[in-house]
Amino acid sequence: MKLLVVGSVAFDAIETPFGKTDKILGGAATYIGLAASIMDVQSGIVSVVGGDFPQEYLDMMTSRKINIDGIEIVKDGKTFFWSGKYHNDLNSRDTLITEINVLGDFDPQIPTSMEDAEVLMLGNLHPGVQLSVLDKMKNKPKLVILDTMNFWMDSALDILKEMIAKTDVITINDEEARQLSGEYSLVKAAKAIHKMGPAYVIIKKGEHGALLFHDDRIFAIPAMPLEDVFDPTGAGDTFAGGFASYLVKQGKFDFETMKSALIVGSALASFTVEKFGIERLSEVSEADLKKRIEEFKTLTTFQVEV
Amino acid sequence: MKLLVVGSVAFDAIETPFGKTDKILGGAATYIGLAASIMDVQSGIVSVVGGDFPQEYLDMMTSRKINIDGIEIVKDGKTFFWSGKYHNDLNSRDTLITEINVLGDFDPQIPTSMEDAEVLMLGNLHPGVQLSVLDKMKNKPKLVILDTMNFWMDSALDILKEMIAKTDVITINDEEARQLSGEYSLVKAAKAIHKMGPAYVIIKKGEHGALLFHDDRIFAIPAMPLEDVFDPTGAGDTFAGGFASYLVKQGKFDFETMKSALIVGSALASFTVEKFGIERLSEVSEADLKKRIEEFKTLTTFQVEV
Repeated sequence: MKLLVVGSVAFDAIETPFGKTDKILGGAATYIGLAASIMDVQSGIVSVVGGDFPQEYLDMMTSRKINIDGIEIVKDGKTFFWSGKYHNDLNSRDTLITEINVLGDFDPQIPTSMEDAEVLMLGNLHPGVQLSVLDKMKNKPKLVILDTMNFWMDSALDILKEMIAKTDVITINDEEARQLSGEYSLVKAAKAIHKMGPAYVIIKKGEHGALLFHDDRIFAIPAMPLEDVFDPTGAGDTFAGGFASYLVKQGKFDFETMKSALIVGSALASFTVEKFGIERLSEVSEADLKKRIEEFKTLTTFQVEV
Repeated sequence: MKLLVVGSVAFDAIETPFGKTDKILGGAATYIGLAASIMDVQSGIVSVVGGDFPQEYLDMMTSRKINIDGIEIVKDGKTFFWSGKYHNDLNSRDTLITEINVLGDFDPQIPTSMEDAEVLMLGNLHPGVQLSVLDKMKNKPKLVILDTMNFWMDSALDILKEMIAKTDVITINDEEARQLSGEYSLVKAAKAIHKMGPAYVIIKKGEHGALLFHDDRIFAIPAMPLEDVFDPTGAGDTFAGGFASYLVKQGKFDFETMKSALIVGSALASFTVEKFGIERLSEVSEADLKKRIEEFKTLTTFQVEV
């Protein structure tokens, strides 16, 4: 099986209480592709960058067996740029700069080599762009995973709902789930979102873990408690990438496999936050991931008889 | 083994987005005693009430085999009264009224029948009162569990630290752990609190679950996701009561037993929030508890191989 990833490939400039970066490699598709690469899953990215995008970043992706045929390079355009500053608790941030640049006119093209991908991971983008990718695929993918955010709920709710109706798995954070559903209780919010289309609803709670909902079944995990969280940028994308890659690798999309995929995504995301940007994730091996999953089991496994 | 409980027995008047109550039975020791009773653990309460405290409440405790020899009745005094209003998200509340009343001069006396209790659960009270109970026990208890709150950190930090130094297990919420330790990271906060005395540090995160720390070991659980949280009052005390009662029942205080105790406390607390005050908890049977623990296992158990 193959994983088709649609999402931003971008520059980020990040400031946290622990330091700041210049423009570094970022973007949802970058994190998702790296996650797939660590798990030895065949992936391809559909995105767009400007003429200012360094060839070395593209080479890095190719060297990691990420198919970049679908990354369009607009020679006279500039790459999407986001700059943000995290507050002291790292749970909230201010966006300092958003330069849409070439992403503003993004007309995604799926390379022939990826037209038959079984799993489609739609990273956070305008829902109209996400929809157009789905429409352009030769074979309907077996599984559509959607990541989105409150920005699109505020600015493009109708088309977002159209996209959600065609989605199998949605990943969304707790506040966004509440906004989308109008329900405060996350159990009720997930039920409302089920009715919009997705059979699986994943609610991401950052440092508080994640919830997976399917019909009346719920699976809940805490996050890895970390001594230091250095930079949360990309954690949600890494989570989605690890989640999607595990499903591709298993070739199954049932509830039990989704549960395991949630663990894998969470374990991978716990690396991302340890350094700036992709720095930590890009040095993680499959063996490192296995070790962290074992730590996760130790963290959460219990016996109890009453 | 026996569980000696020291804490408030009180009147609460509660307002939530779902309704409001008149003065109803409340207080930390009440919830803890009820938890022990559900688990068929022999407990005794040390507390004080006024002449206005209904005999039927005392009879209810006795009928549930809670030893009330240590509840002093000050005939011409009034029972401690707290009134609060929860905000829409139920995660925060305003205290409307606090009438300390007879609790202000509380000089706890341990009845002979409870002097040899092996486990001492110190519910949230002035740390000076908590200390005096420990000093008055004939035999040093095998395990001292302490619950406290930010109010005492603000108003009686030195004596609180003295109490913490004599504590084996401390239960505290995430914000309080941060305040007490001066560390934002909960892993670092727990390490700092370990150094103050307790070998076991439990950080309660409400709807986000709980963490147990012991040396370099960590155990993490989510909370039961509930369709409706009706009234959070007493959830933390129920958690502490279920936790302490499980340890008494097992007669062991090692890390693995503490992990199980955390599950039991969390399962019991998930009942408390379903109705006002003790209403739901007081109708829970041991069979109900077993069923919820099974649901908790289903919620959290996974298999994963990478």
